[in-house]
Amino acid sequence: MATSVFDSPMWGGQYRDPDLAQLFTDSADLRAMLLAEGALALAQGDAGLIPKDAATGIHRAAMTVALDPAALAAGTAAAGVPVPAFVAAFRKALPDRSIGPWIHFGATSQDIMDTSLVLRLRRVVEIYDERLSALIATLGNLAEAEAETVMAARTRGQNATPTTLGARVAAWGMPLLRHRARLAELRPRLLVVSLGGASGTLAAMDGKGPEVAAGMAKALGLGVPDMPWHSARDTLVELGNWAAMLAGMLGKMGADILFQSQSDLAELRAGAAGGSSTMPHKQNPVGAELLVQLGRAAPAQLAGLHQAMIFENERDGAAWGQEWLTLPPLLTLAGRGLLSAQDLASTLVPDRVAMTRPFAAHGGVMFAEACSFALAAHMPRPEAQAMVKTACATALDTGRPLREVLEAECDAPLDWEALFDPLKNAGEAPRFARRFAALARGEDG
Amino acid sequence: MATSVFDSPMWGGQYRDPDLAQLFTDSADLRAMLLAEGALALAQGDAGLIPKDAATGIHRAAMTVALDPAALAAGTAAAGVPVPAFVAAFRKALPDRSIGPWIHFGATSQDIMDTSLVLRLRRVVEIYDERLSALIATLGNLAEAEAETVMAARTRGQNATPTTLGARVAAWGMPLLRHRARLAELRPRLLVVSLGGASGTLAAMDGKGPEVAAGMAKALGLGVPDMPWHSARDTLVELGNWAAMLAGMLGKMGADILFQSQSDLAELRAGAAGGSSTMPHKQNPVGAELLVQLGRAAPAQLAGLHQAMIFENERDGAAWGQEWLTLPPLLTLAGRGLLSAQDLASTLVPDRVAMTRPFAAHGGVMFAEACSFALAAHMPRPEAQAMVKTACATALDTGRPLREVLEAECDAPLDWEALFDPLKNAGEAPRFARRFAALARGEDG
Amino acid sequence: MATSVFDSPMWGGQYRDPDLAQLFTDSADLRAMLLAEGALALAQGDAGLIPKDAATGIHRAAMTVALDPAALAAGTAAAGVPVPAFVAAFRKALPDRSIGPWIHFGATSQDIMDTSLVLRLRRVVEIYDERLSALIATLGNLAEAEAETVMAARTRGQNATPTTLGARVAAWGMPLLRHRARLAELRPRLLVVSLGGASGTLAAMDGKGPEVAAGMAKALGLGVPDMPWHSARDTLVELGNWAAMLAGMLGKMGADILFQSQSDLAELRAGAAGGSSTMPHKQNPVGAELLVQLGRAAPAQLAGLHQAMIFENERDGAAWGQEWLTLPPLLTLAGRGLLSAQDLASTLVPDRVAMTRPFAAHGGVMFAEACSFALAAHMPRPEAQAMVKTACATALDTGRPLREVLEAECDAPLDWEALFDPLKNAGEAPRFARRFAALARGEDG
Amino acid sequence: MATSVFDSPMWGGQYRDPDLAQLFTDSADLRAMLLAEGALALAQGDAGLIPKDAATGIHRAAMTVALDPAALAAGTAAAGVPVPAFVAAFRKALPDRSIGPWIHFGATSQDIMDTSLVLRLRRVVEIYDERLSALIATLGNLAEAEAETVMAARTRGQNATPTTLGARVAAWGMPLLRHRARLAELRPRLLVVSLGGASGTLAAMDGKGPEVAAGMAKALGLGVPDMPWHSARDTLVELGNWAAMLAGMLGKMGADILFQSQSDLAELRAGAAGGSSTMPHKQNPVGAELLVQLGRAAPAQLAGLHQAMIFENERDGAAWGQEWLTLPPLLTLAGRGLLSAQDLASTLVPDRVAMTRPFAAHGGVMFAEACSFALAAHMPRPEAQAMVKTACATALDTGRPLREVLEAECDAPLDWEALFDPLKNAGEAPRFARRFAALARGEDG
Repeated sequence: MATSVFDSPMWGGQYRDPDLAQLFTDSADLRAMLLAEGALALAQGDAGLIPKDAATGIHRAAMTVALDPAALAAGTAAAGVPVPAFVAAFRKALPDRSIGPWIHFGATSQDIMDTSLVLRLRRVVEIYDERLSALIATLGNLAEAEAETVMAARTRGQNATPTTLGARVAAWGMPLLRHRARLAELRPRLLVVSLGGASGTLAAMDGKGPEVAAGMAKALGLGVPDMPWHSARDTLVELGNWAAMLAGMLGKMGADILFQSQSDLAELRAGAAGGSSTMPHKQNPVGAELLVQLGRAAPAQLAGLHQAMIFENERDGAAWGQEWLTLPPLLTLAGRGLLSAQDLASTLVPDRVAMTRPFAAHGGVMFAEACSFALAAHMPRPEAQAMVKTACATALDTGRPLREVLEAECDAPLDWEALFDPLKNAGEAPRFARRFAALARGEDG
Repeated sequence: MATSVFDSPMWGGQYRDPDLAQLFTDSADLRAMLLAEGALALAQGDAGLIPKDAATGIHRAAMTVALDPAALAAGTAAAGVPVPAFVAAFRKALPDRSIGPWIHFGATSQDIMDTSLVLRLRRVVEIYDERLSALIATLGNLAEAEAETVMAARTRGQNATPTTLGARVAAWGMPLLRHRARLAELRPRLLVVSLGGASGTLAAMDGKGPEVAAGMAKALGLGVPDMPWHSARDTLVELGNWAAMLAGMLGKMGADILFQSQSDLAELRAGAAGGSSTMPHKQNPVGAELLVQLGRAAPAQLAGLHQAMIFENERDGAAWGQEWLTLPPLLTLAGRGLLSAQDLASTLVPDRVAMTRPFAAHGGVMFAEACSFALAAHMPRPEAQAMVKTACATALDTGRPLREVLEAECDAPLDWEALFDPLKNAGEAPRFARRFAALARGEDG
Repeated sequence: MATSVFDSPMWGGQYRDPDLAQLFTDSADLRAMLLAEGALALAQGDAGLIPKDAATGIHRAAMTVALDPAALAAGTAAAGVPVPAFVAAFRKALPDRSIGPWIHFGATSQDIMDTSLVLRLRRVVEIYDERLSALIATLGNLAEAEAETVMAARTRGQNATPTTLGARVAAWGMPLLRHRARLAELRPRLLVVSLGGASGTLAAMDGKGPEVAAGMAKALGLGVPDMPWHSARDTLVELGNWAAMLAGMLGKMGADILFQSQSDLAELRAGAAGGSSTMPHKQNPVGAELLVQLGRAAPAQLAGLHQAMIFENERDGAAWGQEWLTLPPLLTLAGRGLLSAQDLASTLVPDRVAMTRPFAAHGGVMFAEACSFALAAHMPRPEAQAMVKTACATALDTGRPLREVLEAECDAPLDWEALFDPLKNAGEAPRFARRFAALARGEDG
Repeated sequence: MATSVFDSPMWGGQYRDPDLAQLFTDSADLRAMLLAEGALALAQGDAGLIPKDAATGIHRAAMTVALDPAALAAGTAAAGVPVPAFVAAFRKALPDRSIGPWIHFGATSQDIMDTSLVLRLRRVVEIYDERLSALIATLGNLAEAEAETVMAARTRGQNATPTTLGARVAAWGMPLLRHRARLAELRPRLLVVSLGGASGTLAAMDGKGPEVAAGMAKALGLGVPDMPWHSARDTLVELGNWAAMLAGMLGKMGADILFQSQSDLAELRAGAAGGSSTMPHKQNPVGAELLVQLGRAAPAQLAGLHQAMIFENERDGAAWGQEWLTLPPLLTLAGRGLLSAQDLASTLVPDRVAMTRPFAAHGGVMFAEACSFALAAHMPRPEAQAMVKTACATALDTGRPLREVLEAECDAPLDWEALFDPLKNAGEAPRFARRFAALARGEDG
């Protein structure tokens, strides 16, 4: 156990999301903070708030200066935020020190830190979208390929009636389609610049605050909010909700794979299996376990993040920190989940023989529902149900196949072969699988 | 303390949401379950799956039959869900018992329970939207009226620079505008019928399942999902996210009011104040406390709800229950919050005199930022900042007003009157207040 | 879905804990509040703070008066707590109104409400202890009886090596033994009177506060805290921790039963199984599901409760409410879990034949570890491990039994019969089962 | 924002706990895993399970070998745990490779990882105890010194009646005393060796498992559990509960300091105050904010940890990971909180003048309760209360001091000076402060 498994060299192969990890480093944060200061200066130069030369100089320096995060540690601890130390270090690092005073002109810590965050979240959102899109495509192909691969549906841990692997895969994928739509919806709310000054009033900008905010946003390729959002954390929490839901969706996929890959069933294999330190025969379903783990862990991080919503007054140091403590782990959980889910989806191998075993098990009682519906065409429904229920009990007690028991008891002219045919009993499962595949391809399912 | 404060007669005045409470009763649930069965029968009659007469009979009975929740208790406990006992009771309650077998034809418990839930959530969503809309309107008027009511902005518990009450109100309201948009987005995803049959394959419906689902949805005024969603709980969790975020937004409003109504400030009063059981002078800010309470409580319920996402296989009895345990309290928290927020917003009375006290406090150091910006026009910025910092220290130590200290020290031709005028130092605050007011009226802010 | 499943007539059979439910009603609360006021008056009479007659009168009335919770609703909502309305109603209900002013003398709402809570928690703790004790006894007997009932241990979802059902039961029971010890430890911290007056200083009691607190505690059979604990909620949160842990322990038991009762294994049956609304053959493991459900739900309630720890200043209306919202559901979850666990433990029936199936499955690879250890006595350990690993692969690929493969390959004089004997491979499992059984009987294991 | 603020160089000054951080590194983990293997080998040598020479060799090597965490990354990711790769690396690193096969003899991953964790938790517990003890001592001195420093008690955000700073400090400290007791209670449950082998049966140890476990425990200075605890996570969760409660207790202390250090009150200063990036006059209460932040964040981590309780079967890869994700951050939160709390307690400076301001504010209505009790000696209590309530209203409306209003209205011979003396109205506050101070010194308070 390391303080953070995400940052641990030893555990990194399991928990690290290389692309996201890169965005959530002090260095990436400082680079984005520099970009924010550069864009602010540029916009203030254009608005005539600071000298044009200073603006250009700051903007240029912001793209080249490199600051050492560790050197800001004492200042960060003293202020509770890195910005005062950061601004001082930036000023010191300027080729032309005389323009230093024009850095961070009329801005506050939160303007710079939140804008830095948003700049990096823009890339996070892109990464999510790319991966989600790839995962949906892979699942679409899988659903298509396995549209008629019959298997036992399980409800409440019990074998229910036949379904197909393709339909199961579609059940994983459909929510992901909705989730892409949600991402598109939240994106414009999230990706906006932060600029409010000391108290969110832009008071130090001489009436030109809104113009500066617009200019800064334009320079950074971000949107402009209706007013500064220092104390309104809904857009960040919304992203957290999205990530936690995603982790949950992938956790469901992991749980399903875990279930079917238990050695008592051995219906599925997916991902590289891990060996045991003592048992030669074991193949641990590492990837599927990880998805469940992440899915179960996400809600707790989300609960922490939501506490940030009660952001007291114009700025709240206690509430703000809830984001720092929970948002990066939560986003990483979701990102890492996508990587592992892609790996599982790409390597999923069904054992078609193992999958048919439940149909024969317990005398074939999985076909009981079908029998009771078929019989209902020949006798009152309650009688049909009672007859099947009794036959099931006999089958379970004696081990005689349900079909044999029923055929002996019932002289209705039923197509027994069809009645006990798994695919014929899988209803719309193949159709659902194919509909998802079509939607995944962008077709109208 | 009662098992549930929401159901307690004694606590009800504080926690109950009368409109939502009505929707989350066993009776309302059973009525909606009956509607679901009725619509199912109708659609199955139209599809030729069950006799037309039976269909009409069931549909009609579904609208008139009344079932006793308590009579289903034993059956519910035995099955872990009420549906088997409910179907039996519905059959018994039919005027014409012969059509009983056609009830619940090919459906499973989850179809009926989820459809019942969705039917009631449709009304919940309407209630939220109506109340949100009213609250936004009230806040809009308040923001307009108090656009220039100056007060001290507080950041990290400290007096910062002047802002206005209108801007503060706008900061409460802007996220609510975004939140109405989110509600509109999630609505079509949420308000869909549930019909999948035993394993989500509609196997018992003889190929007519999709037709039946469409017919049932139409009869109920709901949408049709791309495939059955038994094991995909994202749309419900999305509503939970929405409710928890709302509780957080209102909690922030409550926390702000609580802060300003502490007796040391007494800048605001809102809601009927509660008396103390022992102190004659006390006026407890009950409504504001409640909003904070609900906002802090919501994240925990949400974390519970999210555990439902890992919904194993085709149906998961353990995961499903997470929804029953957390969704109604969470939705109630949010609903109750809207009622209390409306009450607070409608009764909010600022004490304009008390609000100006912080401007004079501590020698008027709240104007320090403004002074340092003004001085920077007459000397290098670092010198200006240093001079103001020293003057602040003098003011804080000696009690002499900052203005007096600075005027003595500095011969720059500054407009001292304006420099220490709260409204002139409130920057864009009035403009933000009015922009929100306009957006609240549906105008383009 | 009802607002609270615990209070729902329909769902009550599943979620209600009849004994705890009785303690968490408004009426029980009011009765305990009356007892608190009665004891307070008695102690104040003894201390000479109020007239002796008034004290006796109040104390007597406190035991007979019955107040209507609903009549306090408006007052409760107005004050945010029921005490002002309760005191007024108590005064009105007095046979001799003249002693009314001496009720609640120098006390504050929290004194009465917290004392009422503690009085009821005393009974909750007793109920927990009794049930826990009974459950431990039942599990002890089961562990003893099934000490040598072999079954497959599963690690990470995979069949591992043999164990026994008795050892599994012991693994459920051992933490419960520790948990009884924890309950005994927390009890004296929890069961103390609350008396602090307006600000926790007992200022209105003329220097006799500590004496009154001691007298009140004695009258109620509670302990006396070192100082008033209005703003220190640790003892309540500690009980919440205990309850959540218990729910988790029982959830693990439920998960294990659920796993072994899946129809693909059918190794265990426990509790009355629930029928399906559509599938005649299904037996849903309702009780085991419920334990998992409660175990997964408890952490979220606990997270809500912990927010009460940040109890601002001398009394915090927002933090206090976190307890009202989460403690009763959390305690109920745990209580209900004990009832269901007792039911499962009392009805658990292993299918000894089904339990041996995994030993033969996959060619008997579950004995691989044992073989590799046995072979290591005859060749270098790495060679032994390699040979077994290869033999496992052959067995899994070809379906030939591992024993046959190894016997063919290896001429070491091994006792093959013993090597593939499940009980001989179950190590200390029987001993652990019996140790737990002894500890459960109170013997030194 | 970094993935983990605890590991960030820039944020480290604020969030890092240097002592704990050292224990939660891959290197510390590997060192402790080596110790566990060494002790296991030693005990197995003594028990005659492995050659004595091998045992000594392994034990010796375990203390000197250094492994590179990064080199285990691929193996860790493949297995989901580092142990297989670790054992291989340990074998490779042995001076005498021939003894390699005797490493990890009959043990499983969890034995080594859990023992490693417990070894490090032993030190964590010591650190907590040392710091807690120091904090209690500091608070004890403070309570003693400020036992009679009067200040306004606040209940529900309102000024209530006088108390003293010493009593407030005692209210912070009393729960810490109880919390030391809890730590002592949980310690023997927590600090036990883990040894169960593949399935928790010690099957590969030829009947000598219990002897080996005892020997291993002895070598490591740990206790011996009643049976292997692979699937019973209660002792770890209990530590998590403890840490979260501690964070909450310190959060309450932080919230109180934050409240009194708001610039509108300025009653307290504590810790080095942080400067603002734009406002020259601001002194942000960084340390107090941090305590609130940590206290609000802990419950969410705890909720995640509790999900580990549902540890399926003999080993559960998904549940286990909940501990890795949440326990180290949770323990770090608590540890860091202790450091910051000590800093705040050691630097807390009350402004005695500012603290008396609320007594005079609003006409002195804080003395209303005292007046009503004093008057009750001269007239019926309801009349006294009514008179005071009216006088309060007059005072609040007109600004006339309550004392003046009451003196004018009432001819009872009251000691008005005493009635409005804060200390005389602070009841037992000084006594409670001193009792805590005595208890903190280990005396019988």
